[in-house]
Amino acid sequence: MPRYRLTIEYDGGPFVGWQRQDNGPSIQGALEDAIEKFSQSRVTVTGAGRTDAGVHALGQVAHFDLDTAFAPGKVREALNHFLRPVPVAVLDAAVVPGDFHARFSACRRHYLFRILNRRAQAALDAGKVWHVRMALDAEAMQDAARHLLGTHDFTTFRAAECQARSPVKTLERLDVFRRADEIHIEASARSFLHHQVRSFVGSLKLVGEGKWRARDLKDALDARDRGACGPVSPPDGLYLVRVDY
Amino acid sequence: MPRYRLTIEYDGGPFVGWQRQDNGPSIQGALEDAIEKFSQSRVTVTGAGRTDAGVHALGQVAHFDLDTAFAPGKVREALNHFLRPVPVAVLDAAVVPGDFHARFSACRRHYLFRILNRRAQAALDAGKVWHVRMALDAEAMQDAARHLLGTHDFTTFRAAECQARSPVKTLERLDVFRRADEIHIEASARSFLHHQVRSFVGSLKLVGEGKWRARDLKDALDARDRGACGPVSPPDGLYLVRVDY
Repeated sequence: MPRYRLTIEYDGGPFVGWQRQDNGPSIQGALEDAIEKFSQSRVTVTGAGRTDAGVHALGQVAHFDLDTAFAPGKVREALNHFLRPVPVAVLDAAVVPGDFHARFSACRRHYLFRILNRRAQAALDAGKVWHVRMALDAEAMQDAARHLLGTHDFTTFRAAECQARSPVKTLERLDVFRRADEIHIEASARSFLHHQVRSFVGSLKLVGEGKWRARDLKDALDARDRGACGPVSPPDGLYLVRVDY
Repeated sequence: MPRYRLTIEYDGGPFVGWQRQDNGPSIQGALEDAIEKFSQSRVTVTGAGRTDAGVHALGQVAHFDLDTAFAPGKVREALNHFLRPVPVAVLDAAVVPGDFHARFSACRRHYLFRILNRRAQAALDAGKVWHVRMALDAEAMQDAARHLLGTHDFTTFRAAECQARSPVKTLERLDVFRRADEIHIEASARSFLHHQVRSFVGSLKLVGEGKWRARDLKDALDARDRGACGPVSPPDGLYLVRVDY
């Protein structure tokens, strides 16, 4: 029974999130429907990260099993054919060993958050960026971000509904830089807590506005208290960029 | 009577084009409606370039006159407020001398065309790129593009409905380069004929596929015959990037 690995791009806007749910269309569901149309088999697709409603992916990874062996190129083409009505595209399909697991084999996840930092709202990138009108100090944000690097109890930056067994994670990278009228925040770690990146972004925005100093971000981390977190950012600017194995 | 200059970003997807028309919403019309809501004056907005349906702008320029003098920042904020329901944003507003004309004072227009060149369709950039599945040779396209530079009779690359008095134009820049899985084509000239960039792109695509050689593009130019042009590209990948004065 071959196992297939997919690399997937999607616009999270019209979906309730990665995970199949009763309250609306999901990316997982769109893929499972496309696989069924192509192969006549109903399978479960497992993703590396369960992105929230409105969160996008440039390189989500998922796996599924089929009874029949198809050429990977054919799987990609067939799925893209049936996915056409929705903003989901399979960039790559490959046959992988049976012990490959999109979620548990992943050793690093890379996220990008885009803030559009100008007076005018987004016309071309509506839904793809978080629009912040007040000029943000990207250097101050980068400076503060350093306090979050390394292994910490990230309870402050964890959603109440987070299902992870432990709030302790190791943040390997958190870079903030300006790119024309956008501020990009890039985060890498083996795994993230629920809403962790959006919680970082919301708190870093307070630093960029001058409402918090770097020290306040450190104190928020040390508090290990959800109430110490800045307002969580909207999902619009968040992209799952890549997953390493 | 102050004259205002606007710099405008828009997603051309939901519009019949820049110009006000009876058959649907236009960017010009959206701006004129927003100006009326803000100032209670019905004015005509003149743009630097009359982009077609589906063509986008990162920096379209336009002007209009009002009886009342408003602070430019207030004009920008008020227009963006009334434009919110549509994907049009005013990046900048300024008061300019009465002899400034968005169209006739322009000395150079810069366009970008984005081709998404990979097997999978666009998920995140649907409607913002031209999806071409066959791998294109960007170097061959750049090599051929050189034949179009300079002053020529561009009849081959001109739409039948073009209203320009002369088909002779001076193409100052036509660069083709690959950027990850996209091919970007950047064109600059004082002014362009109707469908000129999309006609270039359609013919350059034939070169990129190996169906035409550089010599065939030169022959097409020399033919001064609309029938010698390759199939015109769709509008989706075209952006009016900037206008110089």
